[in-house]
Amino acid sequence: MIYFDNSATTRCSNEAMTIMQECLQENYGNPSSLHSMGAKGKDYLKDARDIISGILKVNSKEIYFTSGGTEGNNLAIRGGAMAKKRRGNHIITTKIEHASVLNPVKALEKEGFEVTYLGTDEYGVINLDELKDALREDTILVSIMMVNNEIGALQPVAEAGKLIKSFNKDVLFHVDAIQAFGKFKILPKKMDMDFLTVSGHKIHGPKGSGFIYINEAIFNIMVPQILGGGHERGMRSGTENVPAIAALGIAAKACYDNLDSNASHMYAMRRRLIEGVSSIDGVSVNGHLDDNSAPHIVSVSIKGNRTRAQVILNALQDNYGIFVSAGSACSSNKPAISETLKSIGLEKDLLERTIRFSFCPENTMDEVEEAIKALTDLVPKMTL
Amino acid sequence: MIYFDNSATTRCSNEAMTIMQECLQENYGNPSSLHSMGAKGKDYLKDARDIISGILKVNSKEIYFTSGGTEGNNLAIRGGAMAKKRRGNHIITTKIEHASVLNPVKALEKEGFEVTYLGTDEYGVINLDELKDALREDTILVSIMMVNNEIGALQPVAEAGKLIKSFNKDVLFHVDAIQAFGKFKILPKKMDMDFLTVSGHKIHGPKGSGFIYINEAIFNIMVPQILGGGHERGMRSGTENVPAIAALGIAAKACYDNLDSNASHMYAMRRRLIEGVSSIDGVSVNGHLDDNSAPHIVSVSIKGNRTRAQVILNALQDNYGIFVSAGSACSSNKPAISETLKSIGLEKDLLERTIRFSFCPENTMDEVEEAIKALTDLVPKMTL
Repeated sequence: MIYFDNSATTRCSNEAMTIMQECLQENYGNPSSLHSMGAKGKDYLKDARDIISGILKVNSKEIYFTSGGTEGNNLAIRGGAMAKKRRGNHIITTKIEHASVLNPVKALEKEGFEVTYLGTDEYGVINLDELKDALREDTILVSIMMVNNEIGALQPVAEAGKLIKSFNKDVLFHVDAIQAFGKFKILPKKMDMDFLTVSGHKIHGPKGSGFIYINEAIFNIMVPQILGGGHERGMRSGTENVPAIAALGIAAKACYDNLDSNASHMYAMRRRLIEGVSSIDGVSVNGHLDDNSAPHIVSVSIKGNRTRAQVILNALQDNYGIFVSAGSACSSNKPAISETLKSIGLEKDLLERTIRFSFCPENTMDEVEEAIKALTDLVPKMTL
Repeated sequence: MIYFDNSATTRCSNEAMTIMQECLQENYGNPSSLHSMGAKGKDYLKDARDIISGILKVNSKEIYFTSGGTEGNNLAIRGGAMAKKRRGNHIITTKIEHASVLNPVKALEKEGFEVTYLGTDEYGVINLDELKDALREDTILVSIMMVNNEIGALQPVAEAGKLIKSFNKDVLFHVDAIQAFGKFKILPKKMDMDFLTVSGHKIHGPKGSGFIYINEAIFNIMVPQILGGGHERGMRSGTENVPAIAALGIAAKACYDNLDSNASHMYAMRRRLIEGVSSIDGVSVNGHLDDNSAPHIVSVSIKGNRTRAQVILNALQDNYGIFVSAGSACSSNKPAISETLKSIGLEKDLLERTIRFSFCPENTMDEVEEAIKALTDLVPKMTL
């Protein structure tokens, strides 16, 4: 089996699995319990928080654990908008955000907020001048994903942050880093971010884990979305998911201990895959073809009568043991037309003829060669 | 070690652990992925949903997986109130609910909803006449916990449901069953419930798991609180936590396969512990002493100068290896005065002199005898 669907979800690493089991079956105390089992639970939380805040170079209390990327994005968008709603009611985001950003934004739009949706160029990258022009006196929140989940487009979030904050320091800046964390060095303080959201299961951590960085300067005005016993400094109540949090810490550490070698390995695979499939008749690759992109995502469109994504996906799986994605696989079984692919101006009949390969560091160049061979063999049969 | 803090959290069972690992490392596909790994993920979700809907005798699509009890309670309270806000703005709950119900209710109160908080008798049980009197034309939601987490008081939720629905079918009825599920047969349809919330880590499932039953009749008007890719029929977006959900299903099945024997074993331990500690000078047990209570919780107050809960808890741990709780251990490190203990009229100086023993079926009568011996030995030293 060749698993090239790592942007949908990854295999939990052995190290993450080991600490999960330890927390579920040995040191399983509730961190709120006042006995030593509870204290041990608290230690795991502290360790994970220290690892992650160390990676991001932020204060450990600025890291709040969530149940995943979607919850984090909802907290940033709604919590951030509610925090600043007295200042204004204008929000800026992009047309190519994940549904977990777009849908909270659309809900706010229905409640009376005004929203500007930035477009992208043919590579899926926003235009900073368009962002500059969109900023208004009543703008309270800007949300831009760092890496697009469908084509791997890398947004200039540091420049965007600078631009936003030089316009007005009070505009909150959220970066959805769910596809970027573990692949890039991210420094929220330096990059002028107020929120950064991350999911654990995209980086060989467990499903049901994630975190949000929240700039301490806005802690006092933030509006939590899940209320209860006051866990996570009141920002997200509910018994802490110690096993998942501990595992997330371990998974994050593994990413950043090997950041450069992982990235160069994945960029090499990406370049080779792009080169290999581009030479097949009818096949094109979306987004930037060079390294000015995320290292792990390759979006491939295939011209032909029988090249609908689901057909190609099935053929790759059944005949070659290769697992890829049609669309982003994050929108529960609703194969809607991709806004990202529309935004880059992909011709209409290719919108449903696009598949995504997504790597993890454990994938090998041999697997990439197999995928190239498979498509070289398969595509001519499907385009007849 | 004798672990008597099972109402705070439980050890994850081996069976639950096994399926978690399977889902995290073997069949780790994202259920939204359209390949066979995704399909396997979907199968785990279906199995767990079928197990739980079978236990509750509801339709499987009425079960929605959450990240735990707190998220479920927030969804029931806020989602339910928003669903019915055009009908009225009055909510009824009790003074002794968990913070994950009380705090969402209080937030709604600040937003303009009116709330009636029902009191309890000396055993921690609500009065149905008081509930009847509290119901108004503009009442839209009633939320009553089935088993109180601090003293194990069992509320007459079936009778309450009948009363509410005979007053007005449009009043939504939420039951927080986080301490009740796995200990009692619960039939939401028969008991007139619109929402039932459950947490996995209280029943030997993993932390970060839970579900909410939502009456299908109100599906169309429900207001989800976490928006995104439309998972869980749009009621709770975010990549499904397959490993935790699969494990929750296994844990729920284990509870209900052995419901009667587990309950009678825990009632026997409860009766013996109550009998044993009651004979110690200065020790009293809160709530109903007979089986008209949850089987697994025993709340014990100890008169004396040096009997503050934290002191007793430490002594039991350090000298006898017994782990108990001071307060409910669900309110993150904030040892506030218990509303439940106040509500039953516990004398003031005992409020901070109360500890909680909570059992699971794996606890043994020998462990109970050890605890009785320990308190018999310890208490006289602390009351001098």
